[in-house]
Amino acid sequence: MKLSELGEFGIINLIRNITDKFKNPQQASWQQLLVGIGDDAAAWQSDNRIQLATTDSLVQGIHFDLNTVTWEELGWKALAVNLSDIAAMGGIPKYALVSLAAPGELEVENITKFCHSMACLATEFGVAIVGGNLAAAPNIVITIAVLGHSKGKSILKRSTATPGEQIAVTGWLGLSAAGLEMFKGKMSLDPETTSILRRGHLQPTPRVKEGQILVEQRVKTTIDISDGLIADLDHICQASKVSAKIRMEQVPTHPLVKVNFPNYRELALYGGEDYELLFTANKTIMDKVRQALNCPVTVIGDIVEETLPNQVTLLNSKGNVIPLKKGGWEHFRDESPKGEIA
Amino acid sequence: MKLSELGEFGIINLIRNITDKFKNPQQASWQQLLVGIGDDAAAWQSDNRIQLATTDSLVQGIHFDLNTVTWEELGWKALAVNLSDIAAMGGIPKYALVSLAAPGELEVENITKFCHSMACLATEFGVAIVGGNLAAAPNIVITIAVLGHSKGKSILKRSTATPGEQIAVTGWLGLSAAGLEMFKGKMSLDPETTSILRRGHLQPTPRVKEGQILVEQRVKTTIDISDGLIADLDHICQASKVSAKIRMEQVPTHPLVKVNFPNYRELALYGGEDYELLFTANKTIMDKVRQALNCPVTVIGDIVEETLPNQVTLLNSKGNVIPLKKGGWEHFRDESPKGEIA
Repeated sequence: MKLSELGEFGIINLIRNITDKFKNPQQASWQQLLVGIGDDAAAWQSDNRIQLATTDSLVQGIHFDLNTVTWEELGWKALAVNLSDIAAMGGIPKYALVSLAAPGELEVENITKFCHSMACLATEFGVAIVGGNLAAAPNIVITIAVLGHSKGKSILKRSTATPGEQIAVTGWLGLSAAGLEMFKGKMSLDPETTSILRRGHLQPTPRVKEGQILVEQRVKTTIDISDGLIADLDHICQASKVSAKIRMEQVPTHPLVKVNFPNYRELALYGGEDYELLFTANKTIMDKVRQALNCPVTVIGDIVEETLPNQVTLLNSKGNVIPLKKGGWEHFRDESPKGEIA
Repeated sequence: MKLSELGEFGIINLIRNITDKFKNPQQASWQQLLVGIGDDAAAWQSDNRIQLATTDSLVQGIHFDLNTVTWEELGWKALAVNLSDIAAMGGIPKYALVSLAAPGELEVENITKFCHSMACLATEFGVAIVGGNLAAAPNIVITIAVLGHSKGKSILKRSTATPGEQIAVTGWLGLSAAGLEMFKGKMSLDPETTSILRRGHLQPTPRVKEGQILVEQRVKTTIDISDGLIADLDHICQASKVSAKIRMEQVPTHPLVKVNFPNYRELALYGGEDYELLFTANKTIMDKVRQALNCPVTVIGDIVEETLPNQVTLLNSKGNVIPLKKGGWEHFRDESPKGEIA
């Protein structure tokens, strides 16, 4: 069987099964482990805090096209997607390791722009770039690992959603996917819209502060929206063994996406890479979260008892089921790469 | 200017200069940082211990050729080279994040072998594989990050060598480079030699326990031999602002390399990827180290006051200088890739 037949999530399960076989409860590393393969970041107990570690890659031709993305944007995005994973755990990012595989004929000037922009984002979030790796390679692959720790004694997970909780999302959805569609379709929009869509797709702001506030407000379950709202909600449902009902009317699609893209619903539901936080909590906590967060918070549905095989149900304003398309982005499985830039 | 003109170490300096510009002494991450860009691993203070983080990549066509390496060997080596970086800091490796960029047409069976072998090595060293990343890509790039911590309150660095200290190396040198030469030259040697050379090149055993013993014995300066003896000794000299004199006769070339390869001196001096530990200490400490370590330890020379521009001097048995060749492996700079497998 080929990787493309098994798909990204099938391969992750395979790897988890193998590493599980080698799990040794006598070893300190396994004893201290709190969250392993399958969440936004790994987490383990260390003295008075929980340590967090995550890694994410951007691959030329799959995640980005150098014809449309600048090196500044690439440096920003490569770090931002990792910071977002720490945000989804409610943690404080501290250190980054940057690995770059690239052809020797690349201009040094590009690497300067790349690093400058990355260091700029890093310092904004109190992160120090402290190491990495350089290797010659035919195709550019950027892999960043970010290390951090919990703010207090708790972190956010995917596996703790409970029936009866509300489901909410920060900010607006669909902007990143609309930006990608604008690039792919070579759409000509007004300069301000173009700039906002471009930034939404290539320079997302990770919700690091917001993640920490969610922990403070005793939220337990959070994921960042990277694969798409439906796909990431499905990740929560699978990890928590629950189901979810969400209402299309309440999904906070970005106004510029609604106005300019007839398929705005699709972009908001399946587009992904919005790097907003999707979380669940009971109504009392949710009300406090809305007060505490300095960004839009929209309740879009409820966690219910597990219903198999379909765990996520989308309803229209009349309460009727809207059929779901195939989930969000999955590496290897999709027939074609995600697009020019993703 | 192109990356190939600046070379790997020039690019590392460039990146360090940029990140230095963004250094913010008000931020906790910078305040707690002990070792940043330019050592085997990054190190920072965290509660009662020093945290360590390192990352290393293997790139298809640069570091390995699937025609000669098995997936089991690839899984082993990809993790081993990272464990060796933690060994060079005298630390305890604890967790690994594994990022794999690979084409969708790859057989799942290969990934199974890769993970199985990696998990096997991980468990041998008490390491848990706790996360990573999968991405579709035209060319295979494996990037692993290993997180760990100090055993006590100290770590080993590159920057602490002092004139008057002896220079020593664990184990034997040249085996890995000889293995590579055997593959490249399609050399036919007896089965036992073939197997030892193959293992030396593709399944090195990281000197993790030995690194921890060096810390216990109050050694301060250590590096692992990945770029080659001369190149890595030069890294110590540059970081410590000292020079080194070593004696060719004392370099512990592996007996099988001496017997089978007329260029054995070159393989031992410049070959690299032996993943032995190269360290410096005063004679009293060195004598204790020899007692404490359960592997060969050979004193090969002395640290002296800094002499520029050449910091490493190689002497023959008569005390005459043997001219050095260009240093060890450097990404981007070398005209040709390191070889079929490296």
